[in-house]
Amino acid sequence: MCGLIFGPILAALVGMDQPSGQSRVVIESVCPEIDSGRFAIKRLLRDSVTVEADIFADGHDLIAAEVLYRPAREDAWQRQPMRPLGNDRWRGEFPASEIGLYHYTVEGWIDRFGTWRSNMIKRIDAGQDVDMDCLIGAGLLADAALGATPQDAARLRAWARALSDEASREDGKRIVLGDDLAAIAARYPDRRFATRYERELFLVVDRERAGFSSWYELFPRSCSPEPGGQGTLQDCAARLPYIVAMGFDILYLPPIHPIGRTARKGKNNAVAARPEDVGSPWAIGSDEGGHTSIDPKLGTIVDFERLIAMAKEHEIEVALDLAFQCSPDHPYVRQHPEWFRKRPDGTIQYAENPPKKYQDIIPFDFETPHWRELWEELKRVVLFWIAHGVRIFRVDNPHTKALPFWEWLIGEVKSEHPDVILLAEAFTRPKLMYRLAKIGFSQSYTFFTWRNTRQELTSYFRELTETGLREFFRPNLWPNTPDILSEFLQVGGRAAFMIRLILAATLGANYGIYGPAFELCENAPLEQGSEEYLNSEKYELKQWDLSSPQSLKNLIARINRIRRESPALHREANLRFHETDNPAVICYSKATDDRSDILIVLCNLDAFHTQSGWVNLDVASLGLDVSHGFQAHDLLGDGRYLWHGSHNYFELTPESLPAHIMKVRQWVRTERDFDYYF
Amino acid sequence: MCGLIFGPILAALVGMDQPSGQSRVVIESVCPEIDSGRFAIKRLLRDSVTVEADIFADGHDLIAAEVLYRPAREDAWQRQPMRPLGNDRWRGEFPASEIGLYHYTVEGWIDRFGTWRSNMIKRIDAGQDVDMDCLIGAGLLADAALGATPQDAARLRAWARALSDEASREDGKRIVLGDDLAAIAARYPDRRFATRYERELFLVVDRERAGFSSWYELFPRSCSPEPGGQGTLQDCAARLPYIVAMGFDILYLPPIHPIGRTARKGKNNAVAARPEDVGSPWAIGSDEGGHTSIDPKLGTIVDFERLIAMAKEHEIEVALDLAFQCSPDHPYVRQHPEWFRKRPDGTIQYAENPPKKYQDIIPFDFETPHWRELWEELKRVVLFWIAHGVRIFRVDNPHTKALPFWEWLIGEVKSEHPDVILLAEAFTRPKLMYRLAKIGFSQSYTFFTWRNTRQELTSYFRELTETGLREFFRPNLWPNTPDILSEFLQVGGRAAFMIRLILAATLGANYGIYGPAFELCENAPLEQGSEEYLNSEKYELKQWDLSSPQSLKNLIARINRIRRESPALHREANLRFHETDNPAVICYSKATDDRSDILIVLCNLDAFHTQSGWVNLDVASLGLDVSHGFQAHDLLGDGRYLWHGSHNYFELTPESLPAHIMKVRQWVRTERDFDYYF
Repeated sequence: MCGLIFGPILAALVGMDQPSGQSRVVIESVCPEIDSGRFAIKRLLRDSVTVEADIFADGHDLIAAEVLYRPAREDAWQRQPMRPLGNDRWRGEFPASEIGLYHYTVEGWIDRFGTWRSNMIKRIDAGQDVDMDCLIGAGLLADAALGATPQDAARLRAWARALSDEASREDGKRIVLGDDLAAIAARYPDRRFATRYERELFLVVDRERAGFSSWYELFPRSCSPEPGGQGTLQDCAARLPYIVAMGFDILYLPPIHPIGRTARKGKNNAVAARPEDVGSPWAIGSDEGGHTSIDPKLGTIVDFERLIAMAKEHEIEVALDLAFQCSPDHPYVRQHPEWFRKRPDGTIQYAENPPKKYQDIIPFDFETPHWRELWEELKRVVLFWIAHGVRIFRVDNPHTKALPFWEWLIGEVKSEHPDVILLAEAFTRPKLMYRLAKIGFSQSYTFFTWRNTRQELTSYFRELTETGLREFFRPNLWPNTPDILSEFLQVGGRAAFMIRLILAATLGANYGIYGPAFELCENAPLEQGSEEYLNSEKYELKQWDLSSPQSLKNLIARINRIRRESPALHREANLRFHETDNPAVICYSKATDDRSDILIVLCNLDAFHTQSGWVNLDVASLGLDVSHGFQAHDLLGDGRYLWHGSHNYFELTPESLPAHIMKVRQWVRTERDFDYYF
Repeated sequence: MCGLIFGPILAALVGMDQPSGQSRVVIESVCPEIDSGRFAIKRLLRDSVTVEADIFADGHDLIAAEVLYRPAREDAWQRQPMRPLGNDRWRGEFPASEIGLYHYTVEGWIDRFGTWRSNMIKRIDAGQDVDMDCLIGAGLLADAALGATPQDAARLRAWARALSDEASREDGKRIVLGDDLAAIAARYPDRRFATRYERELFLVVDRERAGFSSWYELFPRSCSPEPGGQGTLQDCAARLPYIVAMGFDILYLPPIHPIGRTARKGKNNAVAARPEDVGSPWAIGSDEGGHTSIDPKLGTIVDFERLIAMAKEHEIEVALDLAFQCSPDHPYVRQHPEWFRKRPDGTIQYAENPPKKYQDIIPFDFETPHWRELWEELKRVVLFWIAHGVRIFRVDNPHTKALPFWEWLIGEVKSEHPDVILLAEAFTRPKLMYRLAKIGFSQSYTFFTWRNTRQELTSYFRELTETGLREFFRPNLWPNTPDILSEFLQVGGRAAFMIRLILAATLGANYGIYGPAFELCENAPLEQGSEEYLNSEKYELKQWDLSSPQSLKNLIARINRIRRESPALHREANLRFHETDNPAVICYSKATDDRSDILIVLCNLDAFHTQSGWVNLDVASLGLDVSHGFQAHDLLGDGRYLWHGSHNYFELTPESLPAHIMKVRQWVRTERDFDYYF
């Protein structure tokens, strides 16, 4: 029956596995859905997944709908009811009760019984004769009884008899108007002509740490207790108590593999290295091995396994760096020259972004005809480290490798190891960053690093938390990295480090710092106008004075404790901004869905001056009772303020503490005249 | 290589007919695209179709992209280049040069030559050695020459030689920097690893009248020249000059089929008809025939064909009513009882919306197991009238018939007759109305009928013209219908009719009136609070005094002439609202893309009082030069006003003319010091 030209459009309809001609319900605008279902949404274990859709049919019949969901390893759908929100919009929820991939979709059908009952009620109200309708209802109930449990079937049949028998019809009418009948009949809907939404959608459920994590980046080779000594993985293990005391739960190590000799960079990225220069850990590969080897100067695979084991004892996880590139000395270059691009003179093309050249780095050629073998080898690298106990990876510059590769790799790895977490280090154009998140990266570095003003922070975080991005892009906020010492940190002194730390740790559920440079407020740039560190640890061994009185380690520990103890800080989607009359001060809140935890953050963005003013709280969004005051307890400075309504005064001094992180406690008078705080 | 669990996601990728591993370009967010390509966008013949997409790849390589399109009857794609708009967004256009279904999609690839040339230029600027790059470029040019025309190939090879030969390398560099090379090389891109967007999208191109039309609804049976006489199709044909003089181009006739006797409604919708009552034309079918018969009182099929022929001579088209429902006397009821729903007593279920009952109407049961035969029969009805010269149908209550049926029917009909236009008469919930437009209806009745205030009109028309709706929903604005005499018309007198007429004819490119009730300002309701006409023509013959001095026929003629002569009024998407300081007056403009036709409409929405004030024109959106004044020529009242800048005064008196429809003429001093109006 397909039309000649319009056939293709119709095909989508007729191809559906249902009696399309009789299926009158339409399902549209299912949300969340990313790029027509091409990509999975992301949730965390134990989240409730909310699904909405436009569901309607021709005419006046009532409809019913359910959200269908199943872990991908199961064939059978589970179902949860959807309820109408008005304007043909429906909503349902299902629990994310295990990690891994889920499928979900929506089904709707004409609610034959509900329509009949609703019409019956209208007719009875209008005083119309309903004899015929009683008989129709009796038929519907008899049909429902066929699929019912024996107990329900008996009741349905009894009601059907009451409706069909003229003598008991008045009883029947009363039954119709009661709720018992509606509840039991609704259990046995007539779904013969149900419409299933035309796509199955995907959900990736990750473990909690994929969405709530505190990262600490550390160069193991700088961990030696001896001044100027070569640090090792053992030294790194000895540093664990220090890191854990600050409250971090992920320790991220730059690459730990052998470092190339050819074209090695010297101190401060000098083109020519001196013999004693240690080179950049990202120039991976030498005669001593490649991506599955450990730099002998750092130790052995046994040392690495010990580090993993000790980290486990300290309840911190070790994250490795996946930097898929080679030094000219990498074994791949000899063994698989076909994975690299050749120049007309037969040499292998090094990395460049003209006119810049990176002679110590050779990129893979993802257009090689041997791409399948390359992909498999890189997967083997990841599985190697997984076999050695690693479950978290920070991925270096993923935006310079082919996107289809990442989608395949992450799919492969997570299908066997759904607990793996991957952080994308892509500081690049927004759409490319977002695509990486769509194709599977668990977390992403962000532009937070360069967003300093209230307007910049507000608009950026509204984009991240209030748009469709929240379905798949999990921001991870870094005030600094070994590549980025921002201008704000360079010039703002210790206060600037406090401000950026507090913002990162409270705006984002995931954040990280590159230490000890961060907690020691290291702020000397390579040169004016550069974001590179002077004497960067990327090219030399460093010795850090961890006991410096400058250190922010105690503040960090306090902030990480507040984060752990405040469920409101474990997500981003609950972020709400509030107005202040002083543009140097930003105010935002986070609250749990049930309002059992409400935090208000006020942060002075000016590292140089005390700033004061009035905040205009959106108290309705916080669920506060405006007729009562509330206590704002600053968990950071431990001050307690009595606030009332939306307008409240603040004053923040950058050199002491530039911010409040205030827990809201409202004194509520209950029905039983019992006063309590929540 | 598919993952165990993530396979389904990857399948979409791997299933694409391209070397996915090496295809690095990504195409996302293609626009326009309705519901993931499930439905076609709509355009008019000779429109330019603009397509945008996010297109990008990993890394720094330049990319190139094209929009691909083809009429559905052709296999080969045609191509138009896309250009970057910034932020990885690309745009291209293609012409809609024939009516019918088109496919379109987007393709992107790494621009190998462009990347090389861009890098070369950067390196030359940086004073770097480019010998190796010259050799690489020579190779690219030699490859391009393989697929080039003999003439282009010769030039490409000459350039390749200049680049590869050390002696002529300086010449080669100059060639690289020139535009000739870039232009010719761009003709032969290396598309081996091109990415095709994962869906083909659909476009329906309609003839002009689907998007720009003026409808006049008329009951033929009321066209008798004899007082109280039974009008016929011949009488209707005699009325054509009157209708055409008013400037309408579509004459829509309510159903012209035999009317049922059983349960016939009397005057003013009385439940019991008297023997002389003529019944509602929508109660279709009697012993005299059904949907392919003509009521013998109106005439014969020959009379109908004469009407069609005469209409053609007058350059007006006849639209028929498709009301897919039956009177109890319809031949279908005897011949195909299986197409209707039976009640427990064996009788056939009449139409109802409890507690309301419509005993003279029997709906089809679209859930019948015999739906295929029912669908085919209804298609036969449409094809019957098409065979008799009808190409435009007004569809009665499509929202009470199964939506899959309409999608199939319209697809079937338009595949053979792409010039068919269908107007959906669905005054129902918005999502259902919009779905009908998506599944193929060419035009749709709207809520305009009840939108009276500036705020109501502005927000509704912004929804229709500034959102995705504009891709598929073509509004058709009716101030009145035989079912709807709005409160505004009931109470506002002749001025109210003028106001609603002007709004309908200028806000919408498609509009219609039910006459002669409209032009004669008939405003007596059935009763207080009812929108039904008193002594409605739906249930009785009417005699109208077409020569009444009250008649708006001259105003209508003037407005329809303005519409025809002003291309800016032939579309809706160009609608822009402007502020006024008096909320009783609405101001909006329409302009052609090239600004050769700019109209500003000012309409007093108050039917009772003169209203004056100041308009605040968005002159930038109109492309006006604010440093010069302009002439605002009221095509309606023929006044000419000298306006300047954005703030201008107005005064509108409802009883004379409640609106200005002003053509903007700006005196422009050209470079040649020659003054002219456009």
